[in-house]
Amino acid sequence: MSAWLLPDHIADVLPSEARHIEELRRGLLDAASSYGYELVMPPLLEHLDSLLSGAGEALDLQTFKLVDQLSGRSMGLRADTTQQVARIDAHLLNRRGVTRLCYCGPVLHTRPDRPHATREPLQFGAEIYGHAGMEADIEALLLALQCLRVAQLPQCSVDLADVRIVRSLLAGVPVELARLNLVHAALAAKDASELARLTCDFPAAAREGLLALLQLYGGIEVLDEAEKVLKPSSSLRQALSELRAIASHVQGVPVTFDLADLRGYAYYSGVRFAIYVLGVSDALVRGGRYDEVGSAFGRNRPAAGFSLDVKQLVGVVAPRPLRAAIRAPWTGEAGMAEAVAALRAQGETVVCMLPGHGSEVDEFRCDRQLVQQDDRWQVQPL
Amino acid sequence: MSAWLLPDHIADVLPSEARHIEELRRGLLDAASSYGYELVMPPLLEHLDSLLSGAGEALDLQTFKLVDQLSGRSMGLRADTTQQVARIDAHLLNRRGVTRLCYCGPVLHTRPDRPHATREPLQFGAEIYGHAGMEADIEALLLALQCLRVAQLPQCSVDLADVRIVRSLLAGVPVELARLNLVHAALAAKDASELARLTCDFPAAAREGLLALLQLYGGIEVLDEAEKVLKPSSSLRQALSELRAIASHVQGVPVTFDLADLRGYAYYSGVRFAIYVLGVSDALVRGGRYDEVGSAFGRNRPAAGFSLDVKQLVGVVAPRPLRAAIRAPWTGEAGMAEAVAALRAQGETVVCMLPGHGSEVDEFRCDRQLVQQDDRWQVQPL
Repeated sequence: MSAWLLPDHIADVLPSEARHIEELRRGLLDAASSYGYELVMPPLLEHLDSLLSGAGEALDLQTFKLVDQLSGRSMGLRADTTQQVARIDAHLLNRRGVTRLCYCGPVLHTRPDRPHATREPLQFGAEIYGHAGMEADIEALLLALQCLRVAQLPQCSVDLADVRIVRSLLAGVPVELARLNLVHAALAAKDASELARLTCDFPAAAREGLLALLQLYGGIEVLDEAEKVLKPSSSLRQALSELRAIASHVQGVPVTFDLADLRGYAYYSGVRFAIYVLGVSDALVRGGRYDEVGSAFGRNRPAAGFSLDVKQLVGVVAPRPLRAAIRAPWTGEAGMAEAVAALRAQGETVVCMLPGHGSEVDEFRCDRQLVQQDDRWQVQPL
Repeated sequence: MSAWLLPDHIADVLPSEARHIEELRRGLLDAASSYGYELVMPPLLEHLDSLLSGAGEALDLQTFKLVDQLSGRSMGLRADTTQQVARIDAHLLNRRGVTRLCYCGPVLHTRPDRPHATREPLQFGAEIYGHAGMEADIEALLLALQCLRVAQLPQCSVDLADVRIVRSLLAGVPVELARLNLVHAALAAKDASELARLTCDFPAAAREGLLALLQLYGGIEVLDEAEKVLKPSSSLRQALSELRAIASHVQGVPVTFDLADLRGYAYYSGVRFAIYVLGVSDALVRGGRYDEVGSAFGRNRPAAGFSLDVKQLVGVVAPRPLRAAIRAPWTGEAGMAEAVAALRAQGETVVCMLPGHGSEVDEFRCDRQLVQQDDRWQVQPL
């Protein structure tokens, strides 16, 4: 096989796309910083047991494993950064008040998430720890929307759900894990006959509630309908009123609800949001509340946040214009070196033509050149 | 063992250091961009055979290996980015003229390079392909020095060497690889008696030349001395005159020479430079010419460049001041949301205090607050 072939679902990012990804990366981190989120950089490699603490089987299968030559222990390459940031909040910072953290770095997957997905997403995310109220959920969602505005995403929509709705309907119903997983799958697939079969021996209220959920998707009217048809437990009522309050903070973007939705990572414990872009079936952003995420590290703090893949994002936003640049000849002359340094210090790109070569710079648009006139180096249009 | 313990030589980067690393990262990439270097992002994972093509045993031992579940083939985690960028130049871009590329991303090492080194350096580098003349070496060295100025490194020095000097002295001397490695080791250790023993049956000119090299380190006078004492082959003469020319382009930074030096990666083929900071024995930057680096990919283009570890760099430059921020109360009020959005759009950081919590933001210095006065939201000093 040729030495230059890459593994499937692994790719080089070439200059035009790399420039765009870097611009998006900075925009996203600056947006998070403007909200007071502090940057952290967890490692790519960790002991497998800490990386997978309470993470569930799906993440285990996604995680590359290898052996640490220094200790002989198993290590994993992170497939998701959320657990690591929870560990940092729990043990390294160990603050009592509200902590806001953000990150941006590669994660690696043993298999692609979707048919054309990369196995090396560039995961950006933001997390807010220490506040149980819905203000944290609202801030996470508004920051996610601001990030997409910064990325100049043309049109998106927000989908809201809450894992407490299904949980409160199933509260007190004795059901083994295998069947519970099938119930979740039937809800996700909106498969009414399968759901009816699986819940045939459930208490009537639970069964009717679950079946009713299959119809509870759409606009804000879904919440009114849910209040009518679902058995009103306090946890369910709180979930519905929080969904209503959160939706009221979203301006200028359509919001839909899907009360049967349980998708995403196993760690969600409350409100869950997904942001979609018109014409793309996979969510661009996934987020919500995951209060249990730090429990494996012995410190169960309230937590809300979101993440997205910058490489997926760059595929759905328009490319940005090339940067203008100045072409300069190569001379050993001190006056020219000074002129070039001064232009670069002003933020200009100056590309020196090496002797005997033309220019082949794809990512810079040379619209000016440096020429010597009357003993002085001057910039002239090309 | 506790779930929050990390493997040896692997660490979380916490907010104050992460902010500094991110600032350095941007400064370095912007410096490279201002010289016309295009950003590329090679993958973390590749087929082992392409990752290690012509790379030598040292890199093989540094490389983590794992199995691709999709193909069953061996993959490696990159321990160095230079080979990957050469592959991109050779096969993906495939341009005929001069190509300038830069990169910044993590690399992983099975063992630490130095006693206190991380096993996950953040490697930044720049490479120039397609020009065999020393102008490319000069540009690479000047860009490296500019990068250190951008990083506000207080004081550094440049060390120059050239692998062609030892090679030209050994030209035509039949010597098996094992002994050659011992000769290189004796030169690196400046071990005259060992070198004399190893070269006892070499032709007199080669032997005397190699022994003379042990004294040829120091300032520019070393080049004059070398021209006198070494047998003047054309390749050796060219190396000495290029070293002199390159040194003449370095302004304001002390330059030393060490003509016996062969350290660094196996792929160097000509001038080699290292940049040191006062009081630190390990080089901060290593670079030079490596014309053979693309040969494994079937396209042997002239190449020069350098790389550094941003995590090592952040340890030797002074920390930067914290960013000022504005504290704001949490209200659902539309007027405040507008005021906050306007401040953030101006580049300000606005941290909203969630109900019931004080502020614990380490990486932002809140020196102002947003308060409501006469029905308007206004920024006041704290």
